Amino acid sequence: MKKTLSGIAASNGIAIAKAFRLENPELNVEKSTVTDAAQEVARFEAALNQSTSELEAIKERTAKQISDKEAAIFGAHLLVLSDPELVGPIKEKIETEQTNAEYALQETANMFIQMFEAMDNDYMKERAADIRDVTKRVLSHLLGVTIQSPSMISEEVIIIAEDLTPSDTVQLDPSFVKAFITDIGGRTSHSAILARTLEIPAVVGAKEAMASIENGTLVIVDGLDGHIILDPDSETVAEYEEKKAQYDRQKAEWAKLKNEPTVTTDGHAVELGANIGTPKDTAGVLENGGEAIGLYRTEFLYMGRDQFPTEDEQYEAYSSVLKAMEGKPTVVRTLDIGGDKELSYLQLPKELNPFLGLRAIRLCLEMPDMFRTQLRALLRASVHGNLKIMFPMIATLDEFRQAKALVEDEKAKLQTEGIDVSDSIEIGIMVEIPSTAVMADTFAKEVDFFSIGTNDLIQYTMAADRMNENVSYLYQPFNPAILRLVKMVIDASHREGKWTGMCGEMAGDEIAIPILLGLGLDEFSMSASSILKARSQIGKLSKAEMATHIDRILAMDTSAEVADYVKANM
Amino acid sequence: MKKTLSGIAASNGIAIAKAFRLENPELNVEKSTVTDAAQEVARFEAALNQSTSELEAIKERTAKQISDKEAAIFGAHLLVLSDPELVGPIKEKIETEQTNAEYALQETANMFIQMFEAMDNDYMKERAADIRDVTKRVLSHLLGVTIQSPSMISEEVIIIAEDLTPSDTVQLDPSFVKAFITDIGGRTSHSAILARTLEIPAVVGAKEAMASIENGTLVIVDGLDGHIILDPDSETVAEYEEKKAQYDRQKAEWAKLKNEPTVTTDGHAVELGANIGTPKDTAGVLENGGEAIGLYRTEFLYMGRDQFPTEDEQYEAYSSVLKAMEGKPTVVRTLDIGGDKELSYLQLPKELNPFLGLRAIRLCLEMPDMFRTQLRALLRASVHGNLKIMFPMIATLDEFRQAKALVEDEKAKLQTEGIDVSDSIEIGIMVEIPSTAVMADTFAKEVDFFSIGTNDLIQYTMAADRMNENVSYLYQPFNPAILRLVKMVIDASHREGKWTGMCGEMAGDEIAIPILLGLGLDEFSMSASSILKARSQIGKLSKAEMATHIDRILAMDTSAEVADYVKANM
Repeated sequence: MKKTLSGIAASNGIAIAKAFRLENPELNVEKSTVTDAAQEVARFEAALNQSTSELEAIKERTAKQISDKEAAIFGAHLLVLSDPELVGPIKEKIETEQTNAEYALQETANMFIQMFEAMDNDYMKERAADIRDVTKRVLSHLLGVTIQSPSMISEEVIIIAEDLTPSDTVQLDPSFVKAFITDIGGRTSHSAILARTLEIPAVVGAKEAMASIENGTLVIVDGLDGHIILDPDSETVAEYEEKKAQYDRQKAEWAKLKNEPTVTTDGHAVELGANIGTPKDTAGVLENGGEAIGLYRTEFLYMGRDQFPTEDEQYEAYSSVLKAMEGKPTVVRTLDIGGDKELSYLQLPKELNPFLGLRAIRLCLEMPDMFRTQLRALLRASVHGNLKIMFPMIATLDEFRQAKALVEDEKAKLQTEGIDVSDSIEIGIMVEIPSTAVMADTFAKEVDFFSIGTNDLIQYTMAADRMNENVSYLYQPFNPAILRLVKMVIDASHREGKWTGMCGEMAGDEIAIPILLGLGLDEFSMSASSILKARSQIGKLSKAEMATHIDRILAMDTSAEVADYVKANM
Repeated sequence: MKKTLSGIAASNGIAIAKAFRLENPELNVEKSTVTDAAQEVARFEAALNQSTSELEAIKERTAKQISDKEAAIFGAHLLVLSDPELVGPIKEKIETEQTNAEYALQETANMFIQMFEAMDNDYMKERAADIRDVTKRVLSHLLGVTIQSPSMISEEVIIIAEDLTPSDTVQLDPSFVKAFITDIGGRTSHSAILARTLEIPAVVGAKEAMASIENGTLVIVDGLDGHIILDPDSETVAEYEEKKAQYDRQKAEWAKLKNEPTVTTDGHAVELGANIGTPKDTAGVLENGGEAIGLYRTEFLYMGRDQFPTEDEQYEAYSSVLKAMEGKPTVVRTLDIGGDKELSYLQLPKELNPFLGLRAIRLCLEMPDMFRTQLRALLRASVHGNLKIMFPMIATLDEFRQAKALVEDEKAKLQTEGIDVSDSIEIGIMVEIPSTAVMADTFAKEVDFFSIGTNDLIQYTMAADRMNENVSYLYQPFNPAILRLVKMVIDASHREGKWTGMCGEMAGDEIAIPILLGLGLDEFSMSASSILKARSQIGKLSKAEMATHIDRILAMDTSAEVADYVKANM
């Protein structure tokens, strides 16, 4: 009899293949005394060197096959390997205590891991995870144990794992790895996001997959609804092959829309853009028929390094995106760090509530030199395409005016220096703080556009940390309070002849799209892989009809009521 | 020539007296070996006992002269003194290492202090401060050093200190201490709040007071504008004596309003209530002519203890407030813990952004047994006065409905048990989360009243932690976004025949009052000591005229623009 499991549908698609269990070997370290400490240090250094070359190779491969953003993880690992604060004490321990390298490494690393984890700060916890990952790699070389690597897989499989580390996921080769299943994780975990980027079906949070699935078992993964079937009979295989074919047909149908405009049945055109993190993501935007980049998150340029990117480095990155987009609208968001996003080379004050602290534009206005460098790079790049500059986390008009004045100032300086700057750059803001939504009418007189960042807007409007499971029931995209704020913003922009986009997860959501159309949203920016599906959905809706439902929806009491209504009536 | 300093005006009034420098003696501990460890342990225990009796005396005096809330600090100190996890290791260290008690105490205490401080959690930091305070006290007994105590002051003085610890401030006797000046702190620091409660003038954050003012120097403290004058000439003294007399006359004028209603020049009555923390605060409310209690913060009942208060203990507290208020409206807010307020006996999950986490009603709905106990106590007490129950941190109608259902359920149970419950208890909510302000129209159909909690509403609307100095520029009570939300709430309540109060700091603010009158606010709840001043101000304003300014104010761009307009025109 076939056995079934279920988990969280994390990435669409269906796969049928044999299971490949990705296990972590135990690396047992015993303490011993060495007679020749110098030789032991040399053995340790050799293991470090092996690990360094391995990581450099993986980093390069990842940058080429996936993206710079993903490759940055290995940049961080390489920094750990060369960190004198970690490596120094290990060598010292070997020398002064005459212990074996494995023991000195493990003891020292554990001390740092515990220290960083005790800090109760997501950034430091990530550093602890980096050290753990790197320690495992160096230990495996010292112990002569081979760590199973997903990049070694050379037949079609479905990976089963307790969880995938960032270094595991970036090694997945979609030509062999047909899907993956993990015991832990959620829809927004790192591995789930990567699965969607690679377009590999995935089910996460399956809890008992490692306990129930043996190597070589035939497995069906349904990434559309989160179902997993073990040892299916031929009838079930046929059923899922049909379902897969149907899904593939639908994808092919969507693919035909690649070069089509996005138009409702009543002839209203909207713009479908993509959210990107690095210049390499641009290719995926164009392949998926993106009409714009609605959000280019520039912070990845600043991460996984040990100093600020120079003006020229930034100029190169921005120019390459603008050139690749060939005149299509490209909204670049200025640096959004602070909060949960930190830089190793920038000491920020520790804050009790970082999401309510010194981040994004607040930090940029505090550090105008850093900010001016980014603005100069953007202004110089502006001649290569259709640049729109967007400031994140604007809470007051004062902040917008200050930021805009810096843009004007750098523009004037560049012109004095004889450097060309486009004269049609739009300057807009993210609307992600309730005050800005409520004051949208006054902002609309001064900004060129709005882009609603729903992830943060929901978090602040409901006063609920979206990363905190204890209050996840309050993360309600369809709460009428959110929809009313969205309406205020769109209406305010239209009254002043400006446009409003949305670049949060909500913009690509099947239930949200009919409401947003009805509200008059002008631009929808989402994961590149969601664009064609959204174009197909919008092509079947009438804007005028969607608009007739709005008053009723905004008068509803709860998020659940809205979602039910949309499913039944729109 | 007279010298002047200035700082933050933290508590109104003027004082002229000699300076009394409150200095912290250095307690130098040296390590030594003892031959008779048992005797050293006995010496340590004697110092513990001395400290315990001292603290018990201070605690009792504080409860009597100030409030249970302030006395709770010493309850926490006493818990430290009797904590076996601290005392045990110290004795053990004396015994096993044969060290002197001072050294064993200091080493052990420092270990805990460092551990707690490293946790980067305000609650644990407070515990670290408690241990530091207690350690100092025990050390002083061991070393035979006398710690200067403000309670020993027996002549009229102005205290000069770097900062006042909670234990310093609660020992201030207003008949001798005419004012205080501290180098650090802000308007909302613990000592500033206490100064206002005791009605002692205070200037905080004066930076150089300790460096510039010698013992015995004649000092003028102007708590109205933050000025400090050292060695004033007779002319200046005369000038300030006149200013003081004028202020006293104004206070006397206000005092005449004690039993008067609060009515505008055009005959519109509003209610002026007070915010209280413990039953003892009720006396101050009545002395200052309070017409209601607009906010009774019940969390102090739960603090400074080692277990939850029983239903009967709570019943006693609520009944005593209701009886003392003799039928005047009494709004009791149900437990608001979590966020920055924690209980030692309740292990809450550590959160990255506690202000956006599991707190207040969210926690109460998670822990219905604890919540039901409080509701039963409130319902039983309801027969003794005019009780109104208010839920904090409501973000959705669902939450309100769940909380209200628990009230109804407990009410039905009590009635079945034959226990009387008032049948005219109003049930309302705090409006302190943006979603609730935006959805006020739907809430107004189900709640009996709203009370706007501006401290949190501003924090969430601007996405700026109000305790975080880096973003304090965003804590803008007059930002038109806040005022627009306040208007939404008031208008929504009036449309349904309900009332709206305000219990944040803004309700007692001189600039806010004309705007709030114009917006139609029904109830203003503030520190008891601000009530008479507010009644005087409201008595000179016309509601109809204030209302004519509202449209213009709500269309303004910035908080500063609003404040300037009110000062010039209202």
